[in-house]
Amino acid sequence: MIRLKPKANARAIRRGFPWVYANELVLDRRTKALAPGTVALLEDQDRKPLGLVGLTPASRIAARMLDRDTGAEIGRDWLAARLTRALALRERLYEAPYYRLVHAEADGLPGVIIDRFGDTAVVQPNAAWAEALLPELAQALVEVAGVTNVLKNAGSRGRSLEGLDDIDAVLAGAAPEAPVPVDMNGATYMADVTGGQKTGLFYDQRPNQAFAARLARGQRVLDVFSHVGGFALAALAGGATSALAVDGSAPALALAEEGAARMGAAERFATRKGDAFDTLTALGDEGERFGLVICDPPAFAPAKPALEAGLRAYERVARLSAPLVEEGGFLVLCSCSHAADLSVFTGACLRGIGRAGRRAQLLHTGFAGPDHPLLPQLAESGYLKALVFRL
Amino acid sequence: MIRLKPKANARAIRRGFPWVYANELVLDRRTKALAPGTVALLEDQDRKPLGLVGLTPASRIAARMLDRDTGAEIGRDWLAARLTRALALRERLYEAPYYRLVHAEADGLPGVIIDRFGDTAVVQPNAAWAEALLPELAQALVEVAGVTNVLKNAGSRGRSLEGLDDIDAVLAGAAPEAPVPVDMNGATYMADVTGGQKTGLFYDQRPNQAFAARLARGQRVLDVFSHVGGFALAALAGGATSALAVDGSAPALALAEEGAARMGAAERFATRKGDAFDTLTALGDEGERFGLVICDPPAFAPAKPALEAGLRAYERVARLSAPLVEEGGFLVLCSCSHAADLSVFTGACLRGIGRAGRRAQLLHTGFAGPDHPLLPQLAESGYLKALVFRL
Repeated sequence: MIRLKPKANARAIRRGFPWVYANELVLDRRTKALAPGTVALLEDQDRKPLGLVGLTPASRIAARMLDRDTGAEIGRDWLAARLTRALALRERLYEAPYYRLVHAEADGLPGVIIDRFGDTAVVQPNAAWAEALLPELAQALVEVAGVTNVLKNAGSRGRSLEGLDDIDAVLAGAAPEAPVPVDMNGATYMADVTGGQKTGLFYDQRPNQAFAARLARGQRVLDVFSHVGGFALAALAGGATSALAVDGSAPALALAEEGAARMGAAERFATRKGDAFDTLTALGDEGERFGLVICDPPAFAPAKPALEAGLRAYERVARLSAPLVEEGGFLVLCSCSHAADLSVFTGACLRGIGRAGRRAQLLHTGFAGPDHPLLPQLAESGYLKALVFRL
Repeated sequence: MIRLKPKANARAIRRGFPWVYANELVLDRRTKALAPGTVALLEDQDRKPLGLVGLTPASRIAARMLDRDTGAEIGRDWLAARLTRALALRERLYEAPYYRLVHAEADGLPGVIIDRFGDTAVVQPNAAWAEALLPELAQALVEVAGVTNVLKNAGSRGRSLEGLDDIDAVLAGAAPEAPVPVDMNGATYMADVTGGQKTGLFYDQRPNQAFAARLARGQRVLDVFSHVGGFALAALAGGATSALAVDGSAPALALAEEGAARMGAAERFATRKGDAFDTLTALGDEGERFGLVICDPPAFAPAKPALEAGLRAYERVARLSAPLVEEGGFLVLCSCSHAADLSVFTGACLRGIGRAGRRAQLLHTGFAGPDHPLLPQLAESGYLKALVFRL
């Protein structure tokens, strides 16, 4: 049993906020001695029970709400029930078993990310309570989702905050020996699910890639920060006459090429390895023009202290990419920065487009797809923004 | 020639803001005497030209930017060029000629809305400059879009602010004698384009209706404020076992029934005429439950003074509709209020869902479709929000 300090916001927790910060918790010697991952009963200041939480006493997020039912047993059956509910949503949304199966707090499994690639599930247990229950989670996954292989991906930065290791593992079955082909939006992506080279696959842009594909017919397309070809291959599936993918990672571009080849689109596809800013500048100097340009950079402003510099970087991306867009063509600018909300990100894009001497219509504002649900009480859970402009 | 007052924000206009308010303009006797709709050269405080504007000296929005090229000739050819650019976007986005063809400022035709229903175009000329050029606009529409019939819809409240009449007219061809069938998202809608009963069709919800349809398979569906069946018929196309449409307008529901019949889905479709709040309460009392509930009310908070009352109304919609949703079912809540931005609208919905004793995942946040582009400099041009929750 652990208790909130008098100043803690019990009302927010009752309303659905899922975290208790360390400074809100009575952390006496006994509580501090609890092993990370311990499941405990949380009480408010008046000793009224709030629910069962997973503890990480040494973390800033010292407790995560697991169940408001204080009689719940947090084990394999409980995990199976949460997975069943998460799976029902994805099976309704998608025809094939390729999606984010669990999106952490919003799916009732705080800190846990599970991506599914057919019969392989990749788990990111980014909270101590989940790490402690990893064998049960893997069993429940096999049982509920019918997957054969369950892999642990320990690459998230969040794990060190929870005192967890960074060692990947096979929890069930085996790691696929070759990249897994994933069909999305008519394109074929190659996902290296063992993740050694950070060349897995991100499902979050699926609806925005589908929208971009609608604009691609008959266009020359440029996809910067392309990774394994996210937007470029969708554009080819949408009828682009050509697509050029730019990325700093040779292994990622090799997977993009493999995907294009599987689609029978290799002759319309080209890659260019290099720094994105340098390449945008060089393409401008070469006088290149495209009907559709996409820039989906890594998080330039992952947290508040990086916001100013991040917004300057987004503005620079817009300023360098806008001149490459034909008159009447399309520019897709994305951000996966938590700290840059939609309004300030849009402002940075518009400044960049304006400084390039162009004007824009805003056609579409998109977020992550519905296999990335949000817990409304947790603003942090929304991060991805995609803006589609016509110049 | 007209000129800005010293205090006016010429920089914002240079950056793309398209309006000049009456209190920013030197309105001397000569200017005030100009006929509404006059096209004039706008100069800044230093007599530098800013562009050509359409004037309505008596309106709060006294001038609207038409062209930053001061040498442009605002006439039929100019209108045709704007229409050509707008049409190119829609033809890329949609396979069939049913869409909003012109969305006012964002398409470079300030105050002008044009919806297309196959070979019929319905024009809302909500600014004096466009009213003055209506014959040329109709000619350009026939020429560029190849439509046969051009109708004037004078029903917008904005027209009285511009000193314009409320008289509908046929500008070319003839008014269709029967409602026009419109295929969208696999459903068939009946649009009464002469608009006498406000039973036309709104294209703006198309992507949100498509999303809702993905959630409808095998579900009992309730569509409140259904109008001509916007969400209900899309849900039937998506495989709903039944759909109940609630609206206060008998003619609108009759058109919804006609659409369902054309889809061969009449036996899965029912309507209930009545006040939405009363009906939601009654359905709750009857113990009804649905797998998918949609509430797409009229603008409860069209402008700032109505914001508080409007948010209470949105909260009430959420509070009354959430209990009708099955455990694990879906709730779609929409707002077309300018004054209620996404954040405050979401807050009102969550308060209502919480007061109904339910918790929610947020699956999807949608806006108006891409045939309703926005001018980023004009925040007013975004209004539609659709939130999809899973309870």
